[in-house]
Amino acid sequence: MENFRFSMPTRIIFGKNTEREVGTETRRIGSRVLLHYGSERIRSSGLFAEVTGLLEAAGVGYEALGGVKPNPRLSLVEEGIRICRERKLDGILAVGGGSVIDSAKAIGVGVPYRGDAWDFFSGKAVPEETLPVGVVLTIPAAGSEASKSAVVTNEEGSFKLSLNVDLIKPKFAIMNPELTYSLPPFQTAAGAADIMSHVIERYFTNVDHVDLTDRLCEATLKTVIHNVPIALAEPRDYDARAEIMWAGAIAHNDLLSTGRVGDWATHQIEHEVSALYDVTHGAGLAALFPAWMQLTCAHDLKRYVQFAARVWGVEEDYREPEITAREGIARLKAYWKSIGLPASLPELGVPSDRIEEMAERAVSNGRKVGNFVPIHKREALEILRLAS
Amino acid sequence: MENFRFSMPTRIIFGKNTEREVGTETRRIGSRVLLHYGSERIRSSGLFAEVTGLLEAAGVGYEALGGVKPNPRLSLVEEGIRICRERKLDGILAVGGGSVIDSAKAIGVGVPYRGDAWDFFSGKAVPEETLPVGVVLTIPAAGSEASKSAVVTNEEGSFKLSLNVDLIKPKFAIMNPELTYSLPPFQTAAGAADIMSHVIERYFTNVDHVDLTDRLCEATLKTVIHNVPIALAEPRDYDARAEIMWAGAIAHNDLLSTGRVGDWATHQIEHEVSALYDVTHGAGLAALFPAWMQLTCAHDLKRYVQFAARVWGVEEDYREPEITAREGIARLKAYWKSIGLPASLPELGVPSDRIEEMAERAVSNGRKVGNFVPIHKREALEILRLAS
Repeated sequence: MENFRFSMPTRIIFGKNTEREVGTETRRIGSRVLLHYGSERIRSSGLFAEVTGLLEAAGVGYEALGGVKPNPRLSLVEEGIRICRERKLDGILAVGGGSVIDSAKAIGVGVPYRGDAWDFFSGKAVPEETLPVGVVLTIPAAGSEASKSAVVTNEEGSFKLSLNVDLIKPKFAIMNPELTYSLPPFQTAAGAADIMSHVIERYFTNVDHVDLTDRLCEATLKTVIHNVPIALAEPRDYDARAEIMWAGAIAHNDLLSTGRVGDWATHQIEHEVSALYDVTHGAGLAALFPAWMQLTCAHDLKRYVQFAARVWGVEEDYREPEITAREGIARLKAYWKSIGLPASLPELGVPSDRIEEMAERAVSNGRKVGNFVPIHKREALEILRLAS
Repeated sequence: MENFRFSMPTRIIFGKNTEREVGTETRRIGSRVLLHYGSERIRSSGLFAEVTGLLEAAGVGYEALGGVKPNPRLSLVEEGIRICRERKLDGILAVGGGSVIDSAKAIGVGVPYRGDAWDFFSGKAVPEETLPVGVVLTIPAAGSEASKSAVVTNEEGSFKLSLNVDLIKPKFAIMNPELTYSLPPFQTAAGAADIMSHVIERYFTNVDHVDLTDRLCEATLKTVIHNVPIALAEPRDYDARAEIMWAGAIAHNDLLSTGRVGDWATHQIEHEVSALYDVTHGAGLAALFPAWMQLTCAHDLKRYVQFAARVWGVEEDYREPEITAREGIARLKAYWKSIGLPASLPELGVPSDRIEEMAERAVSNGRKVGNFVPIHKREALEILRLAS
């Protein structure tokens, strides 16, 4: 086990009707906030009106800024920063899913910074201050509600890059599973793939003796695997929605990273796919992960056998562990297909003619990506080909 | 699943040599602190000298107060409060196990309070302020390093009561598994029983549909079950000690309570045993839990079957689930015996002549204890008899 530091300061307020606490919670982080959101669904569902009413009742002023798109754009981040400065806002309330929260986090660190907020994503600077961010979560997927991560796309050059610092963990996250009843099946499934991918990236590690976190990872995966088909069959099943939503936060708040080193090559490659083709992140991961697994299976067969046996209940072939390992990967692929996700990039509308470019960009400047198995351009290309 | 609130603000600093950070971490919480500890083992091991040297190097002043005993006493808490007030200390550093940390937490809330610190334990008052508490953990057991709990014994009348409020969560916890190498086998085993009991109290719930936390509980139990025999056979096995230590914090930081209602009857009963006979808490729990399980098994056979199958790998008897359920309890009892713990109260030196009194006190004022199954005096008596 590796040394680690860990805390989870985000106040989680989870359950039915918890959005009613948004006024009092927001007042704890600011007196005038940027109310950041994405699609018109927030308005048409009545959530926007409910939230603004509660903010007003709590004496919290706000400026609304909607329009966050999946794979959130730097241009809107810059607009948010401008509004916060001009109106002297002192906090941000993100109402939505991972894209809205990531956009809010980027605005948060951008406001007190004299330079360009993109500096934090390109690695040119490390943020030291932020406006506090609060969350009302409507899509369980990215885990951004309790994570130290934000991913933003810079339209100039289609760069999609991430920032990872404890500073940007939200102050609070209101999580009402009922708000996810209206999620369409594809978004429910893609969110599940995103959640599962966050666990899988952490699961495949070269760090020895990580029993507890292995088992916590398996627990989280099995919970999602079991509950997603229930939620797809009955979108208003509170308990299934609740299990998925809580698993989404646990999957990415770094509890499952404690003492281990995750891989993250597949996320890097998917970011390049998303940057060029604007695909749904979770669906892109579902298309890529089985390919990555095929490529890396031989690197640590025992770990793949454990994944197959413990997560998928594959009966072990003790004489031929490869068979068990391959069966685990096949089960994952079949599961994602069964919940309506693409099994390949073409199914996502990603043609194969720019594979070379995506592989090149994923390992930009000739650097490798991935910790479990180092991925250079050649391997990135192979993963993209296997997924095509 | 029930609604819940959760956060884990304690900064965990985990791994080899992490006690070297005690100076810089303590400086963040205070400029002059009470250095609170228990046995002379802290001094003889050299840890005391190392910690004081690091505090001095970081410019942190300190007053030392040792002598905390297992089942920490109110009289020492009062002495600590007096010292903090007289010397105008602004923080507390607890170096030791759960008793030292609990004592530090009680001192912390006592210092700014005008009344008697016992008020917080007797339920007469709720603390609103505390001195910040930091921890260097040397015994994985109570989970107090990241929990909202403190248990203190009032010698006048042998009352052992607990305080549970978020306010008293430590600011930081330094956890170096190497510091646990010197723990004697009995303390290692009793600590494990304490950790396992914290999970078991949460596991047996009447709340329906708690998949994720069920599985997180099972993950934590299985990790402890697997690693304790390794640590007993080879006390200097870093990884086994590390798994147990991290599991101890996870078991009691309330992550495993999210969305569920725990039982806690057995803890109440054990507190009465400890209050009268001053037994090691974990050992007392090991003697009592199988008895509690015998009594409550029929209440929710399915949950006991799940416990047997998932935690102990018992092959299910689908025709006769009682057989599977009973086997799970038998395995737990056999496991605790195998690591050197008492299977009954007499083995702990607790005679049966005051059973009536203990049962009476556990359900003081005619109230029931326990949420999974309500335990009145009659049932408490039966548990104590079964354990005798």
